[in-house]
Amino acid sequence: MSKQLDFFLFLGSTYTYLAVNRADEVAASQGVTLRWHPFSVRSIMIEQNNRPFVGKPVKLAYMWRDVERRARQYGMPFASIPNYPNDSDELANRVATVASMEGWCAEFAKGAYAKWFLENRDPGSPEHLSDVLRRIGRDPDAVISQANGQAARDRYAANTELARAKGVFGSPTFVYESEIFWGDDRLEDALAWCKTH
Amino acid sequence: MSKQLDFFLFLGSTYTYLAVNRADEVAASQGVTLRWHPFSVRSIMIEQNNRPFVGKPVKLAYMWRDVERRARQYGMPFASIPNYPNDSDELANRVATVASMEGWCAEFAKGAYAKWFLENRDPGSPEHLSDVLRRIGRDPDAVISQANGQAARDRYAANTELARAKGVFGSPTFVYESEIFWGDDRLEDALAWCKTH
Repeated sequence: MSKQLDFFLFLGSTYTYLAVNRADEVAASQGVTLRWHPFSVRSIMIEQNNRPFVGKPVKLAYMWRDVERRARQYGMPFASIPNYPNDSDELANRVATVASMEGWCAEFAKGAYAKWFLENRDPGSPEHLSDVLRRIGRDPDAVISQANGQAARDRYAANTELARAKGVFGSPTFVYESEIFWGDDRLEDALAWCKTH
Repeated sequence: MSKQLDFFLFLGSTYTYLAVNRADEVAASQGVTLRWHPFSVRSIMIEQNNRPFVGKPVKLAYMWRDVERRARQYGMPFASIPNYPNDSDELANRVATVASMEGWCAEFAKGAYAKWFLENRDPGSPEHLSDVLRRIGRDPDAVISQANGQAARDRYAANTELARAKGVFGSPTFVYESEIFWGDDRLEDALAWCKTH
C-alpha cells in the first residue's frame, strides 16, 4: 500500500490554488497518496492573530506577484488578481468537505479555484458555487443542502480541530505523522520526508 | 560580464542563515554574481506592522523547525534554537555594511551566523562581534569604529531606503531590476529570472 500524506487545505487561500492543481500529480509521481482535508484555516488564523496581509499592502502585492509567477512556472493559468477574501460563510469549503467524504474533492477544488482565479467570481456564493458543481456533474441543490447539514459541519469542525492539534496555522499544509510542512513550496519536502520516515 | 543579482540581507533574520551559507555558491554555479546589501528589514517591518512571529508561538515554533529541516537538507549545521531576536543596535549589520563596502561581507556574515546559530551568542554584542572579526583576521576595534561612523550609517540607511523603494519587506530578498524574490527558498527562482530577463 502506498504511503499517505495528509493535505490540509482552505479554498479561500491564495497559494492553495497552486497546490490544488499540482499536488495529486506530484504525489502520485512519488508513489504517495494524498488525503484531502478541507479545514477552516481562517478560524485558526484569527485565533492566533495571524493576519499576514490585512493592512500590509506591500506584502499583499508581493504575494500576488509571487503566486502569478509560480503559476506560470507550473504552466497553470493566471488571469489577473481576483477579489479577495471570499467564501465568507465557508460554504465552498463545506462543499469541499462533502466532496472529500465522497472522493471528488480534488475535482471540486480545481473547479472552485478556476471560478475564483480565472473568472473572478466568488465560489462561496450559491450562484457561482452551483455553476462549479454543475460543470462537474453534481446536483447543486442536493450538494449545497448536504454542505449545510450537520454531518458536513461536524466533519469540517473535526478537520479544523485536527489541524489545530497538529500545529497547522496556514493553508496549504502537508502533514505526515507529527511533521508539518506549510506552503505549496514545501510539497516536495513533505513528500521526501514521508517517503523516508 | 556575468549578470548581477542584488541580495538584500539582515543578519537578525532566521532564514537568512540559509541564504548566507549557500547563495554565493548557487549563484556562481549559474554564472550569476551576487551584490550583498545589508539593510534594516527590522525598520521596514515595524513601519509596515509586519510582525510574523511576535505573539504567534505556533508559527514561531514551525519557523524554527522549518529552518532546522532545511539546514540539514543543505548539509548546514544546526545546533539548537538560539536566542531571538538579537543585534538590538544593528551593530553587526553595520559591520556587515562596512564589509560589503570592502568585499568581505559573505565571510563576515557566515561567521556572524555561526556565532549566533552554533554558539548561541549574539553577534551584535561587542564581545562576540569582536570574536567573529578576529576569526576572519580583521581588527575588531578598527572595524567597530568604522561601523559606528557616519559613512557606514549612511550606507546602511541608503540600502534600507533602496530596499523600501523596491518593495522589499523581508530578508533575505533577491532583486533583479523591478522583480523581487523573498526568501531563501526563492533563490533558484530569482536566478532563473535573472538569467532569462
